[in-house]
Formats: sequence, structure tokens, C-alpha cells
Amino acid sequence: MTNFVEPAVHLLAWTRFDAAKAFNLTGWTVDDDTDPTGGQALAEFAGRSCFQSWKKPRPETSTNAGYLANILRQNHESVVEHATATFYVTGVSRSLLTELTRHRHLSLSVVSQRYVDESDARMVRPPAADSNALIGGLLDDVDSAANIAYVGIVTRLTEQGMNRKQAREAARAVLPNMTETRFVVTGNLRAWRDVLRRRWHVAADAEIRRFAGLILAELRELAPNVFQDFPAEPFGTGE
Amino acid sequence: MTNFVEPAVHLLAWTRFDAAKAFNLTGWTVDDDTDPTGGQALAEFAGRSCFQSWKKPRPETSTNAGYLANILRQNHESVVEHATATFYVTGVSRSLLTELTRHRHLSLSVVSQRYVDESDARMVRPPAADSNALIGGLLDDVDSAANIAYVGIVTRLTEQGMNRKQAREAARAVLPNMTETRFVVTGNLRAWRDVLRRRWHVAADAEIRRFAGLILAELRELAPNVFQDFPAEPFGTGE
Amino acid sequence: MTNFVEPAVHLLAWTRFDAAKAFNLTGWTVDDDTDPTGGQALAEFAGRSCFQSWKKPRPETSTNAGYLANILRQNHESVVEHATATFYVTGVSRSLLTELTRHRHLSLSVVSQRYVDESDARMVRPPAADSNALIGGLLDDVDSAANIAYVGIVTRLTEQGMNRKQAREAARAVLPNMTETRFVVTGNLRAWRDVLRRRWHVAADAEIRRFAGLILAELRELAPNVFQDFPAEPFGTGE
Amino acid sequence: MTNFVEPAVHLLAWTRFDAAKAFNLTGWTVDDDTDPTGGQALAEFAGRSCFQSWKKPRPETSTNAGYLANILRQNHESVVEHATATFYVTGVSRSLLTELTRHRHLSLSVVSQRYVDESDARMVRPPAADSNALIGGLLDDVDSAANIAYVGIVTRLTEQGMNRKQAREAARAVLPNMTETRFVVTGNLRAWRDVLRRRWHVAADAEIRRFAGLILAELRELAPNVFQDFPAEPFGTGE
Repeated sequence: MTNFVEPAVHLLAWTRFDAAKAFNLTGWTVDDDTDPTGGQALAEFAGRSCFQSWKKPRPETSTNAGYLANILRQNHESVVEHATATFYVTGVSRSLLTELTRHRHLSLSVVSQRYVDESDARMVRPPAADSNALIGGLLDDVDSAANIAYVGIVTRLTEQGMNRKQAREAARAVLPNMTETRFVVTGNLRAWRDVLRRRWHVAADAEIRRFAGLILAELRELAPNVFQDFPAEPFGTGE
Repeated sequence: MTNFVEPAVHLLAWTRFDAAKAFNLTGWTVDDDTDPTGGQALAEFAGRSCFQSWKKPRPETSTNAGYLANILRQNHESVVEHATATFYVTGVSRSLLTELTRHRHLSLSVVSQRYVDESDARMVRPPAADSNALIGGLLDDVDSAANIAYVGIVTRLTEQGMNRKQAREAARAVLPNMTETRFVVTGNLRAWRDVLRRRWHVAADAEIRRFAGLILAELRELAPNVFQDFPAEPFGTGE
Repeated sequence: MTNFVEPAVHLLAWTRFDAAKAFNLTGWTVDDDTDPTGGQALAEFAGRSCFQSWKKPRPETSTNAGYLANILRQNHESVVEHATATFYVTGVSRSLLTELTRHRHLSLSVVSQRYVDESDARMVRPPAADSNALIGGLLDDVDSAANIAYVGIVTRLTEQGMNRKQAREAARAVLPNMTETRFVVTGNLRAWRDVLRRRWHVAADAEIRRFAGLILAELRELAPNVFQDFPAEPFGTGE
Repeated sequence: MTNFVEPAVHLLAWTRFDAAKAFNLTGWTVDDDTDPTGGQALAEFAGRSCFQSWKKPRPETSTNAGYLANILRQNHESVVEHATATFYVTGVSRSLLTELTRHRHLSLSVVSQRYVDESDARMVRPPAADSNALIGGLLDDVDSAANIAYVGIVTRLTEQGMNRKQAREAARAVLPNMTETRFVVTGNLRAWRDVLRRRWHVAADAEIRRFAGLILAELRELAPNVFQDFPAEPFGTGE
């Protein structure tokens, strides 16, 4: 019986800003509404440092939300590169991984199919197959066939004297795209904005769009001001 | 009956250097042994421009091979970034693609499994399965099961009103890692050196090591002086 | 008397596409209006390879200009990464270099102020000072003062036993931003599009905007279809 | 009288790891000797996730120091990409900035010479000029001449109706390389390792080597296990 798994993203690490040191150096501090120890405050500090403008005379840019809204509108996204967010991701497919890896500004540490025993790997249902019994049956068939072949290849190659790593490396050839992968992924907030612009989009693959929605929800909690211009529904919905 | 395919790399494009213009600008020309219109000559031009040293007083660096040997030994690999090589690659697996994509300095245009009909996709045997009849049979089994499911999923989803692209996107979930992919890949010669250092290596996956060997053979013909320090056998062989 | 110099960009290298090999592999060839050996044709090949669509049924995308217009409009700029252009640039200032270096996708080989004798360096007038005699006089004064100090520092430090390279490294501290630099710069066409979008812009620094205009003129000749959506006047002019 | 300034690097932000969440997800926790909330622990988590090896059977890799020593020795530096460090840097020259910008994996937010009034800019003495009265006098001369010209150009251009930003943009042409710059710089620990490998080196420019020493001292405190293989003296000293 195939063991299907749902996607999950866990915020694991983020940038901590030493607001007290920043204040000692420049006399500047973020507005009261914003977490002074977070990446949003750091992004504003970085923007202000370019102009050495530590005062806040204009009301519309005196809040962190206002300042970042203005700077993102002007396409100066580089200031949000200073803050990063790291997730531990489970329950996504190797197809998704292959798409995500195209984002060259992300840092990835991925479960190795060469080293890890995949004989009891879990599977990820493509969203189009959700609650679709006929298709679910076809996915089961492939999972079974792949599992039998995977175990068979590892067994035979190790019996012939090959070491386990090389045998698994060969046997992974039969694993389907829907095989679960897990990874640690880090991106700076500019990189995440780029990922979400492309994947939180109606034209994106259904699984990676779902993943983008999960990531966006976490990032909105971590750094709402940096993602204030992102829509609740995928890009392209209302066009 | 599974249609297995062998890997092939086709050199499709490369950097052409306007040696006559370089001569007009600086009085410098590459030594007689080296193609004056190639990336090797451009790399030497770039190196010399840093020091505006257009004369060649020292015999050991008066040839292009000598000049590049010296500059690579000093870790000044950036000069070989100016030249690129582009390949059209066929007969490699999706596993290989996922590994290759980790090299973030490469530019890739890959056959899309979301758009293209994969019902008659060809398969790539892992090297460990070459001339291994028992394992070949297991690969056939998985190919058959995946094919039946792929066609079934596309048929059912389109019958239910889904468009063909979305149906294929869902159905690719069952395709195995050994499914053939094709791509256009471009790297500058520094990026290729990095790829080969890691993949033309005894510790690399067997399929990507075989691929690296094919790439290296092409690059040695295109720019022998840039790859003069690469071994004939994979790195790590003699250690 | 200060030796002022004008900017010049020399197209030194570019991507050559083996159209005959592409035809042999796929049966595809670019339309008659387009240089079959250039980067534009390669970009179309790369785009078509993603969909394995080697036929040209739709008139609006049957030409290279039409195909690339369509693909750039859809934000699939990655296909133009496969083609590069390399320039030898002279007559630009160190200020410009510092700004250009921010474009991390460019590859640069720059005249080293640590190694090269700068006692007879040429100067680059900022565009605002063109035909402005009063300001020209001020630039001359700085050039003279810097030159005297540069020669003085090198002389004294070498007299005190320091080697020439270390002495020049210290002496360059006095060289002004307007000091000429020269460099070899390579970018793929996507990187150049990004540079031009930001620097061929009314909000850009005057010198780098002038430089961007020179680069754009060369790129329009090399790959008109890739830059067909770029304006004749800097971005922002008509807004 | 020239206002000379000394370099300073201030650690402003770093990666905070949610060790409790990592433990809940995997049962793994870092050894007692290591800060469980820091980037070092995250790097080990990322490395272990690749192999899903959450137990620590081998004593030599059961500590964080041992684990990272082993992984760095094997050239798997990518796991330290997940942690970053951000500095606010003051008292360094524009020459240093130009060199540092070559490290394309760093994120920089730099004081803009186009926007900020540089008429009272501070200067950075090259290390070779320390306690060298003759050379100090030459630096003063250049500073005075540059300052007079800078103020003169801004005054005249604004009198002629140019706006202040454009006038400063033109006037910066006369500022010397030794002019102080300030910036916020972020790098992941792999990027910092690469910077230090090249700049904490006897062959590096004297000012950037001094800067590298300051950065290394901060990073050793933040993440000693990640920099355990770096020497106390610059690379190349003992060769």
C-alpha cells in the first residue's frame, strides 16, 4: 500500500539583527511597530546606510513598512538580500526539487538518493490526483513496480559484490518523480521574492505553487513588510 | 520493449575571438601554435590586459599553453570566464539533470516534462546495469508500469476536462529517474572546470562521471590549454 | 596638462553557433532573415529544445524576431543566457568600474592599479564637466596634485626598500575616481539586458548611462532581435 | 588637516537556528560544547539531513567541531551556505570596496557617493604610509586639493542650475581612492571562507588583508568550528 505524504515547510533559521549595536553606531532605531531584531529592520538599516539618512523626517517612510514599500517600488531589492530564511521541507516530490534547483540563489542540502535507502520511500501525490480514486490506483501500481525493482536491483548488485552505495545509486534509476524528497533550503529575502514571483503564479506547476503558498505564509509572518506587495492569491489570478 | 538510449554531447556553440581587432588595439597576438580565434586566445588577452603586458619576454609564458598554465597555477581562473562552450545533450537521465543543475554557473534549457508528451520517452540505463540481463529486466518492468500509468493518467484527466498540459504535469509523477532528458547547456570555461573537478572524479555518480568524460573530451579539443591540468582518468584514481 | 580620454567599447568576442550541426540533430534552421551562426539563432534553438517544437506553424513566431519577442514577453529570458558578448573597454573611470562591478553576472578582467604604473594615467571627464572651462581647471588641479603625490610616494617607498608592487599599491591611494581604467568584460545576453535596463536609464549616473548607450549600440548590431524591446532613448525618458 | 580614520568591522546580524524545532522534527541536537542556536549547529543539521543520519555513532564526528572538520575536508562546503554574517564596516577605502565587490557572493549596501555630501569625507591611510611622515604630508596635499575641487565643482554646477545630486555625482570624480567608504556587507559562511582564503593571504593588498584579519577575528568568535582550518597568520606566510 503506497504511503502518501503531505508537504510541510518548517521555518528553521532566520537572520537576527543586533538592534542595540546599530543604535550605538548610528543613533537609528526602527519604528515601534516592527520587531527590532528581525531582517526587516536590518533591511531598513542597510537602505539608510546608503544615504547615511538616520533621521526620519517624512511620515510615509518613517515606518518600516513605509520605508520598505518605497524602496521595493524603486526596485532597490538589494537591501533585502541581507536577511535570510531557512526551511526544512518534507513531503515534496523530486519533480519539485528539480524545478526549485533552477533558482540559483537558493542554498540546498538535499537527501541523497545515492546514500539513503529508498526502499520505504514515501510518495507525493500530484495535486491533480487528490481525491481521484482511479488515478490513485495508477500511482499505487507504479509505486509497487518501482519498489520491487529497487529492492531487486540493490539485492542483485550487492550479491555480485558491488558496495551498497553504488548499488543504491544504480537502483534509484527506477524511482518515480513522485518519490518524496526532503531538504534544507536557505534563501535571502530577495531570492525568496524571486522564487515566489515565479512560482506563486497561476502558470506554475500545481505542486510547486502549493509549496510557494506554504513558504509565503511563513515569510509573511517572519517579515510582513518585505512581502507586503505579494497577493493573497497566486499572481495572474485576476488578470 | 524498453527503448534504451546512449548519452551524447554535441558541441553546439563556443566563443569566437576577433584576433585582428585585439591586435589593432594592443599590438598583441597569440603564439603561432594556438587558434587565434578561440577562447584560449581571449583568455590570454584578458590576463595580459590586467597588467597591460603585451610583450612576451619570458619564454615559459610566451606560448598560450605556458601563459595559461602559469595563470591557472596561480588560481587566477577568472580569465577563463570570458570563453564559453554550449552543448546539446541527449541520452542522459533526469537523475543526472538534477545533479548537474546544482552547478549554479551553468545555463540550462531543458525539455519540459510538463509540456512534452512522454508516452514514448526513451530510458537511460545506469552504467552498473550495462550488460546485466537480470537488472535489465527489472528496468523493463518499471518502464512498462510507468508507461501504462502515464498514458492512463493523461487520458483520464483530459477526459475529465483538464487541459493537456496540466494532465501531463500530473502524469509525469510516475516517470522514473531513468527517463531520458535532453538539454542545451552553456558554461564558461571556469564553470566547466569546476563541474569537471567534481564530476570527473571517482567519487561521483557513475552516470555523471561518464557524462563528464564526454564533455572533457570535447573541451580538450576546443581549448586544450585550458584543460591541460586535467587528468586522462577521473580525479582520485591514483590516490 | 591633464590627458583626458573619451570612452570606447570594442566588441572583442561573441558566441558562434554551429547551425549545420543543429540542423543535423533536429532538422531545424533559423529563418532566412537572421544570421544562422549567431547567438540569436542559438537562443531560439534553446527555446525550441524545451518544447522539442522544431516546426514553425505559427507565422508570428516563425521568424527569429517574432520567436524571441514572444519568449522575452513571457519572461523566459533564460534562453538568451546561452549567448555572450565580450568587450574591451577603455576611457572609463574607476567610478564607473565600481558601479559596473555590482552586476554580479558579468566577468571582468581589469587593469590592476597595484601592478601597473599609473604615473601617466589618463583621466575621464565626468559628462557634466564637458565644455565647462571652470570645472575643467579644477579637474586639472586635482590631476596634478595626485600625480605629484603618486610619484612621490612610489619614489620614497622604493627608496626605503619596499618593492615596486607594494609601493604602487600604497600610492594608488591618491588616484582620483576619474582615473582611467580599462577592462575586458563578458556578459551573457541576459546579463547585458539587466545591465542596460538599470544603466540605460535617466536615473543612472551620467557616465555609466553614456557607457550603456555605447554597449547597446554594439549589441543591437550583434543581436538586434534580443534587444528589440529596448528604447532608443534611456528608460524613463518619456515617463 | 586631513581627518584620517581607522578601519572597524561591527558584527550586526547573524543566523539564528531554532534548535528546539530541529529536535522536534528529527530527534537530533548538537553536542553540548556548541551554541545550539547558531549557524554552526544549522550547518551540521543540513549536513546530517543529506544522509538522514541523526545518530552520532562515531566519536570523531559526534562533536560539531569534528563533524564540520570532516565535511569541510571532503569539500562539502555547501552546508555552511545556510548561515550568514552581516557586518557594518567603516574606515575603509574605496580601493578596498572595489576589490571586495569582486566577491560576487557578498551582498553590499554602500554609502552612495552620488547622494551623500563628501566635502568632509574622512580618509584612509594605506598601511604602508603608517607612521611615515613624508608620505603623510603627500596624502594631506591630495586631500586638500581634492576637497577644494570637490566643493568648487558642486558650487559651480548648482549655481548653473544643476540639481545637487547630479552636481555631487560629477564632483566625486576628484575624490581619491583613499576616501572612506562605509557599507553593510552580508555573506554566507561559504562566501566568507572564500573571501578570507584569498584576502587573508600574503599576496593580498595590505589594506584588504588587514580588513580580512578583522573579519576573521569576528567570525572565529561567531562560528569557530567553521573557521577552525584557517591560520592565525595570513595564508602563504609559512610557505
